[in-house]
This record gives sequence, structure tokens and C-alpha cells, in this order.
Amino acid sequence: MIGRLNHIAIAVPDLAKAAELYRTVMGAKVSAPKAQPAHGVTVVFVELPNTKIELLHPLGEKSPIANFLARNADGGIHHVCYEVEDIYAARDKLKAGGARVLGDGEPKIGAHDKPVLFLHPKDFTGTLIELEQV
Amino acid sequence: MIGRLNHIAIAVPDLAKAAELYRTVMGAKVSAPKAQPAHGVTVVFVELPNTKIELLHPLGEKSPIANFLARNADGGIHHVCYEVEDIYAARDKLKAGGARVLGDGEPKIGAHDKPVLFLHPKDFTGTLIELEQV
Repeated sequence: MIGRLNHIAIAVPDLAKAAELYRTVMGAKVSAPKAQPAHGVTVVFVELPNTKIELLHPLGEKSPIANFLARNADGGIHHVCYEVEDIYAARDKLKAGGARVLGDGEPKIGAHDKPVLFLHPKDFTGTLIELEQV
Repeated sequence: MIGRLNHIAIAVPDLAKAAELYRTVMGAKVSAPKAQPAHGVTVVFVELPNTKIELLHPLGEKSPIANFLARNADGGIHHVCYEVEDIYAARDKLKAGGARVLGDGEPKIGAHDKPVLFLHPKDFTGTLIELEQV
């Protein structure tokens, strides 16, 4: 069912500093910051040959990563995103397998303008997992 | 400098259960467990089309992931591994950029029989990073 690793999302306390670190010290191709107010984050994309890293920083009052950064002041890996072909079929299979979908269980339009949902970390070895339909 | 994402390593408290979760609920191709006594872990490889996940469980008395699992009882993402072409050149560039290499700073032969080193999470937005020469 799960396909490619779409991205790894890393929450960072200082977006400009993290982007510069990946650009200069790691020698990676790094995008300009992109504000995504509907998702409560500003994002910098780090391009790798086979996938990407998304550096996330809170934006606005109700950012979904604010609590995570409060608990992890240095930053840290926030979630991983796997691609699926059919997000409704994936959701139904996951729920039948006992996995909990976060929120109301309905896919939402995610940061890449594609349907996404998030799975409960307690059901996936402590890992917050996003599924994105591609 | 950094190339492909070689793998994401997830430490898990129950390897058989985690492998079964990825195989049945996530529908991924999952290897048999492989004991790596020199590295203090038993590993299950989850193959994705563009990269892999390594599910790690402690093996032996001095496993490098034992403390992590003591702090994260459900498991969690332990590290990410980026590929580099020349690990000595990468190390020197990182050190010149102010990043700390863990241990004595010399590459070791890693779990894939290739030279690896680990970078201090405090220097990389809270993320433990492994570099592997490919």
C-alpha cells in the first residue's frame, strides 16, 4: 500500500539558520521559505536526489508544531510522509487494521494541495505518519 | 555534498510487532530480522520504492539505542542517514562548518559494511544524522 517516502518533516526553532545549515554545511539545494498560513507553518524544502526534507517553523497562533517545539527546543523530526494511490482505500485498510486516524478521520487538503491524513503515533511505533495521495 | 536519503531508522520496542504492522497494515515489503551484533541491534528492512526504513531493536548489553528506547517507550525515529561520496571530505567540511562528529571523529564501518559517521543532534536541529559513504 504505502509507496514512496514523500518527505521527512523536521521542526526547527530558527528557520533561516536551519536552511543555511543545510545549504552551506550540508551542501544541499534549499528553497526560499514559503509561508503556508492555512497549515500554520513556514516551510523550507531541502531537495535530495530521491526525496525531500521539509524544515518547518510555526506560523500564526495555532501552529500544529508549536507544542512539539515547546517540548523539543532544539527541533527534531516531526513526521514522515508516505505516498499512497488512494487515500480512502488506505484509510479504510488502516482502520480495519486497528490504526487510529487523527482528527475526524476524513482526508484534508495538505500543504502540497493533495489529500492527506495523519496516523496516531501510538499505533506506529512512536512515529507520526502522514499519508498523501499522489 | 549530501546525496540520497539512504534510510530512516526507527527504534521499536517490539520488532516482530513493528515488522508485522508495516507488512500487513501498511502493505510494505519487509525483510526477515537480521542480527547485527557488532552494532548492537537487530534490524528489519522496510523497502519503499525510493528509500528504506530500518526498524531497530536493541541487541546485547551495550546497544546504542537502549537509552533512546528507555526515553521513548513507544519507539520513535532514531536517526536519518544521508549518502556522501567521500566521507573524509564530508567530515572535514562539516567540522570546518562547526559541526561536531560523534565519537573520535573517525569513520567506522557501519551496518551496511560501508564507512559511516554520526553528527551531533545539537548541531542539526535536534536530528541525529548518519553519513554513509556509498
